This record gives sequence, structure tokens and C-alpha cells, in this order.
Amino acid sequence: MAEHTVKAFDEDIGRLRGLISQMGGLAEEAIDGAMRSLQRGDLDLAQEVRAADKQIDAIESEVERLVVRIIALRAPMANDLREVVAALKIAAVVERIGDYAKNIAKRVPLIEGEHRIEPISIIQAMARMAAEMVHDVLDAFAARDAKAAIEICERDNALDDFYDAIFRTLVTHMVENPKTISEVAHLLFVAKNLERIGDHATNVAEMVYFAATGTQMAEREKGE
Amino acid sequence: MAEHTVKAFDEDIGRLRGLISQMGGLAEEAIDGAMRSLQRGDLDLAQEVRAADKQIDAIESEVERLVVRIIALRAPMANDLREVVAALKIAAVVERIGDYAKNIAKRVPLIEGEHRIEPISIIQAMARMAAEMVHDVLDAFAARDAKAAIEICERDNALDDFYDAIFRTLVTHMVENPKTISEVAHLLFVAKNLERIGDHATNVAEMVYFAATGTQMAEREKGE
Repeated sequence: MAEHTVKAFDEDIGRLRGLISQMGGLAEEAIDGAMRSLQRGDLDLAQEVRAADKQIDAIESEVERLVVRIIALRAPMANDLREVVAALKIAAVVERIGDYAKNIAKRVPLIEGEHRIEPISIIQAMARMAAEMVHDVLDAFAARDAKAAIEICERDNALDDFYDAIFRTLVTHMVENPKTISEVAHLLFVAKNLERIGDHATNVAEMVYFAATGTQMAEREKGE
Repeated sequence: MAEHTVKAFDEDIGRLRGLISQMGGLAEEAIDGAMRSLQRGDLDLAQEVRAADKQIDAIESEVERLVVRIIALRAPMANDLREVVAALKIAAVVERIGDYAKNIAKRVPLIEGEHRIEPISIIQAMARMAAEMVHDVLDAFAARDAKAAIEICERDNALDDFYDAIFRTLVTHMVENPKTISEVAHLLFVAKNLERIGDHATNVAEMVYFAATGTQMAEREKGE
């Protein structure tokens, strides 16, 4: 590339990274807000989380427009093209993470019924683990840190085990408290959403690894 | 564009449409296979469905490479660019639809336990409705048919109502047959996956509408 093109490309990439990091921050906030609203039965906060999802969607559209512009105007090659395409895919995944958080917030009114159910608290620790994965994988993207990306994929196994334990706990709770079955069924979906957030953080980690190294991380069985 | 560029672009677009249509066919087959394996408790078929998902993933990667090449080499504008970007996004959504089908197949061994549970049959009709939405929305994409796209979005409301009815049926079944709670919990996820497939078909319909008309379909509340 000519020098002025390189400079323009660097500016574009900087803006792209900024947008992704902004999306990531919003997604983390959404997970945190959804889980706080669930813990407290705070319907107003749940509504705020649902409304805030539109911002994430808007940034994703902006990423998409910027990526098309970069490919069309700067014609990036090799490493640079890989990074631009990775940014596009990562934005799509972060948007999905936001959707899962929104989905948790949507269930708050369905769970806050007449029966206060105890297992809500054990899901909070799982949520923190998932939110940290999202946070750390976006840091890894910003730093092009392939090693951190591998480490995040490994954490997903622990999250999956956590999910399995919660699934069993919730089913046991249903058996022992049949009146709460409907509410606990919604909690099952909450736990599943958190497990999926971990899967998506893992997907992003694989994209970060590929963008940074140009090779695929060894094929792993996804928890889809 | 110069005439030879137009011809090359048309060939590229034709190939892109072919790939999307191929992905759509595989996704439909995956839904069908997953539901048949669930109905019959056919673990071999369930395993085949899981294995076949790799093909869908491979075509998505091919779409991605082709789109980047088209944008970089043909520099499409306006309508053409909109269609190319829509193809990229549609491929990503179809890949997710394939994941939901794979996820249903993964649950077959968990549901085929010691208790044969009756509500499996009512979910089949819901699956047919979801698979038809996927089929029809990809036809609408191939035909650039904005009217068909609107009609598919409307069908999603019926699918959501179906899901709500199944959710209630399954919860009632759990209350009345506590020994089946664990298996029925997996069926809840199957129903939820089908509902999500409908949401994704709706997302594709919105993209088809935008690609065909250049305007957004009126903002709808997604069932996320």
C-alpha cells in the first residue's frame, strides 16, 4: 500500500477496534444488568437492559458499513484483510451475546412469580464466569494475544461443567418443589443462555487466534 | 461497471446465490433429520445430523471468502453491494439454524431415557412449521421477493404461539409425571430451538426485504 493508504487504513482499523471494544463493554454491562435484575426481581432494570440492546445492534451495523468501506477503498491483503474480516465476525458474535443477556432480562418477570425460588443465587457465580470470558476475549482481540485466546477456550470447559451442575440442581429442585416448575424452567433457560455466552466468547477467542496467527486453533467440539 | 466486470459480477452473484441455496437445503435436512431421530429415538441418525453440520460451516466460510473477493475485485455499489452484504449475513444466520438443528440432535440420547415421553409428538408439527419458514425464506431470497418476506415474518407469530402452548404442555407434563422432569427439560430446549429457528428465518426475511427494496421492514419486536 502507498504510505497515505497505510495511514488511512491504520485509522480505519483503530476505529474498528474502538467500535468492537465499545460493543463488548455494552454486552458485559447487559449480562451484569440482567443478572442483577434477576437477583433482585427488579423489573425496571430488566426493561433497561432490553432497551439498551438496540445500541449494540446499532454499533454492529456501523462495524458492517466500516468493514465494507475498508475492503472496497483500502483493498487490504493477507494479515490486514484477516483482521478486518475477524472484526466483522466478532461484532456479529458480540451482538448475539447481547441478545442472550436481553433474553435473560426478558425472563425476569416470568421468574418473579408467587414462589421465590432459591437456585437463583447459584446462577450468579456462573454469570460472573461468563461475563469475565467476554471481557477477557475482547482484551485479547485488542492486544492480538493468541495465548490469552487459548486460555479463554480452556475456561469454557469449566463453564460447561458449571452448567451441567446447575441443570441437575434445577431439575432436583423441580422434583422437590413441583409448584415452582414453571419458574425453574425459565431459570434453566437463563443458565443455558449463560452457557451459550461462554460458547460465543470461545468462538471469538478462535477468531482472535486466527486473526493473530493465520492458523486455526485446533478444532474443538463446540457446546452448541 | 465495464461490461466484462458486469458479467464477472453476475457470475459471482450467481455462485453466491447457489451457495446460500445449498446451505439452506442442508439446514432444512438437518432440522428434518434431527426431528426424525428424536421421534424414533434413532441415535445413529442423530449422530449423522451432528456430523453433517460441518458441511454447512464449510459453505459459510466459502461464502465469506467469495464476498470479500467480490467487494475487493468488483467494487459493487448500491443495490449490488446491498445484495452481497445480505448474502454474507444470511449465510451466517443459516449457519446458526444448522447449529440449532445439531443441538436438537445432541439431545436425542438425553431424552431417550427409561421413560418414553408422550409430548415428543406435538413438537413435530412445530418443527414442520419452522422448517417451512426456512425453506420459503430462502426461496424469497433467490426470487428477491419482498412480499413473500413479509408473509414469512407474519408466520413467526403463529410459531411463537405454538411454542407458548408447548411450553405450558411440557410444564404440566412435568408436574404430573415428576419422574420424566429431566427428559422433558431437554424437550423444552428442543421446542425453544425450534422457536429460535423461526426467529432466524424471520431475520433472514428482514434481510431479504432490505436487499430487495433498500428500506427496512418496519421494526418488529424479535422473540429473542
